[in-house]
Amino acid sequence: MIYITRRETFSAAHRLFRPELSDEENAKIFGKCSNPNWHGHNYTLEVTVAGEVDEHTGFVLDLKLLKEIIRENVIEHVDHKNLNTDTIFMKGLIPTSENICIAIWKQLEDKIPNGKLYSIKLYETENNYFEYRG
Amino acid sequence: MIYITRRETFSAAHRLFRPELSDEENAKIFGKCSNPNWHGHNYTLEVTVAGEVDEHTGFVLDLKLLKEIIRENVIEHVDHKNLNTDTIFMKGLIPTSENICIAIWKQLEDKIPNGKLYSIKLYETENNYFEYRG
Amino acid sequence: MIYITRRETFSAAHRLFRPELSDEENAKIFGKCSNPNWHGHNYTLEVTVAGEVDEHTGFVLDLKLLKEIIRENVIEHVDHKNLNTDTIFMKGLIPTSENICIAIWKQLEDKIPNGKLYSIKLYETENNYFEYRG
Amino acid sequence: MIYITRRETFSAAHRLFRPELSDEENAKIFGKCSNPNWHGHNYTLEVTVAGEVDEHTGFVLDLKLLKEIIRENVIEHVDHKNLNTDTIFMKGLIPTSENICIAIWKQLEDKIPNGKLYSIKLYETENNYFEYRG
Amino acid sequence: MIYITRRETFSAAHRLFRPELSDEENAKIFGKCSNPNWHGHNYTLEVTVAGEVDEHTGFVLDLKLLKEIIRENVIEHVDHKNLNTDTIFMKGLIPTSENICIAIWKQLEDKIPNGKLYSIKLYETENNYFEYRG
Amino acid sequence: MIYITRRETFSAAHRLFRPELSDEENAKIFGKCSNPNWHGHNYTLEVTVAGEVDEHTGFVLDLKLLKEIIRENVIEHVDHKNLNTDTIFMKGLIPTSENICIAIWKQLEDKIPNGKLYSIKLYETENNYFEYRG
Repeated sequence: MIYITRRETFSAAHRLFRPELSDEENAKIFGKCSNPNWHGHNYTLEVTVAGEVDEHTGFVLDLKLLKEIIRENVIEHVDHKNLNTDTIFMKGLIPTSENICIAIWKQLEDKIPNGKLYSIKLYETENNYFEYRG
Repeated sequence: MIYITRRETFSAAHRLFRPELSDEENAKIFGKCSNPNWHGHNYTLEVTVAGEVDEHTGFVLDLKLLKEIIRENVIEHVDHKNLNTDTIFMKGLIPTSENICIAIWKQLEDKIPNGKLYSIKLYETENNYFEYRG
Repeated sequence: MIYITRRETFSAAHRLFRPELSDEENAKIFGKCSNPNWHGHNYTLEVTVAGEVDEHTGFVLDLKLLKEIIRENVIEHVDHKNLNTDTIFMKGLIPTSENICIAIWKQLEDKIPNGKLYSIKLYETENNYFEYRG
Repeated sequence: MIYITRRETFSAAHRLFRPELSDEENAKIFGKCSNPNWHGHNYTLEVTVAGEVDEHTGFVLDLKLLKEIIRENVIEHVDHKNLNTDTIFMKGLIPTSENICIAIWKQLEDKIPNGKLYSIKLYETENNYFEYRG
Repeated sequence: MIYITRRETFSAAHRLFRPELSDEENAKIFGKCSNPNWHGHNYTLEVTVAGEVDEHTGFVLDLKLLKEIIRENVIEHVDHKNLNTDTIFMKGLIPTSENICIAIWKQLEDKIPNGKLYSIKLYETENNYFEYRG
Repeated sequence: MIYITRRETFSAAHRLFRPELSDEENAKIFGKCSNPNWHGHNYTLEVTVAGEVDEHTGFVLDLKLLKEIIRENVIEHVDHKNLNTDTIFMKGLIPTSENICIAIWKQLEDKIPNGKLYSIKLYETENNYFEYRG
């Protein structure tokens, strides 16, 4: 079993809040992340697939193909977007990094042609990162 | 002459557009950076001061003090903010990194107690950075 | 299950040695790390907590809170300190990175309000890092 | 159980191809990585050993010793070399990062004096990395 | 005057040698960089343009345009190539990083539509970098 | 003119203080950097030499040679040392990064066989760096 990882980046705006609460109540739970005028991040995403090496190619899965799968199913929906209002696969979710990881997992889970999706890792800042393994 | 640099980070939303133009016209000039629903970045800011070494302390300027000056005059106005709507010192400016650098220079220029402000460097992404030296 | 990680840094002095041995004997075991006049590092610490996502907040645990817990229980005891002489929770231990990891685990293990402590990772230099999972 | 990791780097040339296929057929499978005139990378290698802490030293295994083991058994065979033609332990293998990881594992597996080899991680570029755990 | 920088990467093989010398003589001058079977690197290239801010756009030069200019005139000629045999603009030159910087400068010098080319910076490894300012 | 840079790292202990002052007075000037029990850093040093390209080799100066010059004249005197008590070239100086830069410049200034020393850059932490150009 080999674990292969592709790293991609995207830049997005978001706001952490529950719509049924007031701005004050949201600020109590989410702090400055609940700024009603939004803020944003350069996210770094690492997608790991686990599988066996194909003897004919020496690959688990060609990373160029994994890159295209990630770009089509994830990056195009989040890069230079507002995660609360623009990203269909985040609809109804508070866009915390935890929830973004799980949503990206669901986007990619059944799109991997060889091997299995093993991990979604998301860096929100250089100091905060998150991982989901299904 | 010694050049001393303090690095700080902030996360903000922005949109590149001219209000007198339509969304289509803005998209032609600013591409996906003109998304009307905003997007955002983790910015990295490097502030460099040039000066002579004080023989009594061995410092040009205590970097703890420079850190406080940057936080009070810059970071508090931009971190977890919307650069178009929340940041007073960006008022009336298109928030390109070029314009942010110049505005930060003006914020800090006369606040440096020893030495002189030498450079404002701003990383918008890991691939794009900008520098202003007054 | 989601794994959330907070990264912190600290700068400390240390010396690797056993007090009952001579300087020559310590040098044989610990090399230049046993310099009797100390040396030091910028350590990078990554604390990972594993837990389930709270539906109300979208968080496993607010990373601002995890940051405060780490700063109060770890960083204040090690940053700009001598790990051999200043840090109570290292008392009687040779301050190798292996022992620092285990001691930090013990400091944090019962302080995590949601989820469970999963991993303590410590970078001593850009080429050497260490991980403890309990 | 503690996991200790040593990071090393090497620069090498390689070409991905099967000798029984034409250049056109190889290009279809391996893309620009099959350039008959070679290309190359700065590889970053991370070797992780898992073991218990020796109470006398506070080490699992002195990382200086692990460094020497890696340099003698791996780096000397790959640094500033052509992985297809110069590296004996890659003989007969397509030098994909997957295959390099497995070959490095076999080189190191029985050379670790304390603890057990746990993981070989290889960064081919800043966006692509690979891990093998035996 | 603002300095704007675009960072790109490429992976290439090369060999440092003078064709009129023997392998032994080349090894004396160029060390392991003269391996007749080639070796390679992940190069990081930073291209800096200096210019004034256009009031209408807030840009010196749209970095998306600079990216395209660099990719067309440099990256396509060097990425996954052999710098000695595949790259026309390196013909007749020993492919040291010094010479690559100067050759890239000549490729780009008259292609910058706004502002002026200010610097070509090239990282050969994480420890060695080179800069040319014309 | 080409600028070539070699990056090296070292780990050292230090204390910022003036011996004629009390611990309280030193704490007022130097804060936690004046801890009488020392603290330490992983320093990153970048040495830049400016010169013309030698047509016979394509080098300004072979970076392997620059590496050896830096290691012999600087790294051996500071790595795993106490900058206050062990480093002869820091004698009588408060070991601020400003003073370390100037002292390293003096160590290297007349040791460069081709080209001229252009800059000494020192990273004390990931957030604080210093540069001296003579």
